[in-house]
Amino acid sequence: MISVDEALKIVLRKGKKLPPKKVKLEDSAGLCLAEGIKSDLNMPPFNRSAMDGYAVIAKDIKPPVELEVIESIRAGYNPKKKIGRGQASKIMTGAVVPDGADAVIKVEETKALDGDKKVRILKKTEKGANIARKGEDVRVGKTVLPKGTKIRAQETGILAAVGKSNVTVYSTPSIGIISTGDELVDIARKPKPWQIRNSNSYSLAAQARQIVKDVEILGRVNDKKSEIRKLIQKGLKKDILILSGGVSMGEYDLVGEVLLDLGVKIFFEKVALRPGKPTVFGMKGDKLIFALPGNPVSTFVTFELFVKPCVKKMMGYTSYEHPIIHAELEKAINMKKKRREYRPALLKQEGTGWKVSLVDWHGSGDLFSLTGANGLLIINESVEKLNAGDMVEVMLTDGLL
Amino acid sequence: MISVDEALKIVLRKGKKLPPKKVKLEDSAGLCLAEGIKSDLNMPPFNRSAMDGYAVIAKDIKPPVELEVIESIRAGYNPKKKIGRGQASKIMTGAVVPDGADAVIKVEETKALDGDKKVRILKKTEKGANIARKGEDVRVGKTVLPKGTKIRAQETGILAAVGKSNVTVYSTPSIGIISTGDELVDIARKPKPWQIRNSNSYSLAAQARQIVKDVEILGRVNDKKSEIRKLIQKGLKKDILILSGGVSMGEYDLVGEVLLDLGVKIFFEKVALRPGKPTVFGMKGDKLIFALPGNPVSTFVTFELFVKPCVKKMMGYTSYEHPIIHAELEKAINMKKKRREYRPALLKQEGTGWKVSLVDWHGSGDLFSLTGANGLLIINESVEKLNAGDMVEVMLTDGLL
Repeated sequence: MISVDEALKIVLRKGKKLPPKKVKLEDSAGLCLAEGIKSDLNMPPFNRSAMDGYAVIAKDIKPPVELEVIESIRAGYNPKKKIGRGQASKIMTGAVVPDGADAVIKVEETKALDGDKKVRILKKTEKGANIARKGEDVRVGKTVLPKGTKIRAQETGILAAVGKSNVTVYSTPSIGIISTGDELVDIARKPKPWQIRNSNSYSLAAQARQIVKDVEILGRVNDKKSEIRKLIQKGLKKDILILSGGVSMGEYDLVGEVLLDLGVKIFFEKVALRPGKPTVFGMKGDKLIFALPGNPVSTFVTFELFVKPCVKKMMGYTSYEHPIIHAELEKAINMKKKRREYRPALLKQEGTGWKVSLVDWHGSGDLFSLTGANGLLIINESVEKLNAGDMVEVMLTDGLL
Repeated sequence: MISVDEALKIVLRKGKKLPPKKVKLEDSAGLCLAEGIKSDLNMPPFNRSAMDGYAVIAKDIKPPVELEVIESIRAGYNPKKKIGRGQASKIMTGAVVPDGADAVIKVEETKALDGDKKVRILKKTEKGANIARKGEDVRVGKTVLPKGTKIRAQETGILAAVGKSNVTVYSTPSIGIISTGDELVDIARKPKPWQIRNSNSYSLAAQARQIVKDVEILGRVNDKKSEIRKLIQKGLKKDILILSGGVSMGEYDLVGEVLLDLGVKIFFEKVALRPGKPTVFGMKGDKLIFALPGNPVSTFVTFELFVKPCVKKMMGYTSYEHPIIHAELEKAINMKKKRREYRPALLKQEGTGWKVSLVDWHGSGDLFSLTGANGLLIINESVEKLNAGDMVEVMLTDGLL
């Protein structure tokens, strides 16, 4: 039995970045750049007016002063005239500041005269006022996004601004999901009194789809070696195959046997973890196989702990782990044993800090408890008791809402 | 000019929940339930063994003791025999505990004898041990998910467990995006020295796609009333139309005029906010129109502040606002004026708390600054100076990684 940290280290060592591919900018959200991006232009590309007003020579402005208006410059047009002493050009926000001018006076601080042929300036100004200087944000040739950057909305904006209508990103793994167990029935059916519905396939698919699109529920299979073998062979066409169930000590837990028969190399099959001890990880060729325990909370937790960081690494993320929130524990907790525990917990912000309490749950079969949780409270191997008021670590599994 | 809070209140009053629709469970991620969900079964549906081992009568067990093994019960099958005194049934994890038995002994604490016809029990036990009682997680008929619940992975699991292969959720708004300005060119083109690429359409679409799928970039339009009018009319087929640019004081800022011509009722057109003052919000019939300022940081901020909460409300969320993190300011900030400010900022966790620092930026045109930020530091209207070490509020605009 290995520790959670060792198990994660193995998984991250085996999960390799996938090859780069080109995608349309609009399809790149959440992916990671497989190329560094340099700007092909200055930002701003010219001395840009930050206001509607008048482009002037700052030292001309000893108010009240009247200037001759020689041009009206709109955004998107090239100014035709150079500003000389005693002159101004009317200018719109985003327009090019004309040669000669070194300041823009806001329209609110002026008065147009003579049908816009002249302008009276009411306030003084200084050199550079209301002008965004060419290249002050980004100089041409600068790396604006290094290789490995995750593409959020703001990165999409920058990529558009430098003309990347297609970007090279790391591919995302395809994921197949299989549930095993004679007790499982399809969710549209009413289970007999000794059966349950196959919920794991759906919760696993939902977890996987939080980060990748290519996720397929391959089906449910009974505890028969030949059936399990057939579906696993189909699943091995995916980059990552996730199984749930069939991996504890029972004599009908056949998944491990079938994986060995198929030549899958097993790296670990038990992790010192609660819930989630019977977690199996292996590879066949470059395909990764996670055989997770069948109890739904165990399935959920082990996906978050091992599969999600691995998927992120394959996608080119440079940081794989969940955010950890430090929070004050509301009620004492007694441990059972010295395995690392991850307990469904609810984080709340109070004042400037965080509080956390365990949600009511009845063990690894109690999926319902997770609907009241937004994180997993981490109880380290060495801890024997946690008291109310202790600061604890909580792994965020959801957004903070 | 109204405050940010007043503006948001108006937007949230006008954005109404959309009608319910039925979707497949697999397509429901991130949507909100428009129906309360009751469980059609007990969870667990039977007294379920939590271990591989032997189902026994607790008071029989005065170890060492030998019991007759009368059956082997797999998950997914109905036990056929009732346990009597001196008897046990072999049982697998997830299987039905047979009548008569009131405890399960772990296989590790037993020794099979006589080719599995008998078992020696090595440790004593107590009533209820290793049994998940029928209905202890959820009783049949209980509301497991109230109307309005946002569907995360764990809710998907519960919905599957209670047989909801289709769920009734609130519809999501369709969103159309238009950028205006003579200075804009399509992103695949090289801009002339006085032009810029149309990045706003792409960053807005990326922001919108974080929460809804039906997002369309409708195009870019020059500063000509007839062209703007035509494209806005097309955009009014969407539930929400987002424009950027064309809403400041310049004489070529024509969007406001066209909206009025088209009979759009304007609720506000300026917000006491930096960046993002010239933000316009209106309605025509039940269509919502946001005309956001054209500077990219203003566009980004006003989308987060006004559009995103509105979309969430229309989707049936019960909580619309961004998570706020309280963090310690690393460097002092001097304010310019008494408008509410939202400054691009970087949050980092240090020890048990958060630290925040402003990212280097040159004003609302500096989209590049946002690539270094994961939140917006909020500076309230009344604040004149913030000192290093002050606790401040930061609106999270991204995940915490």
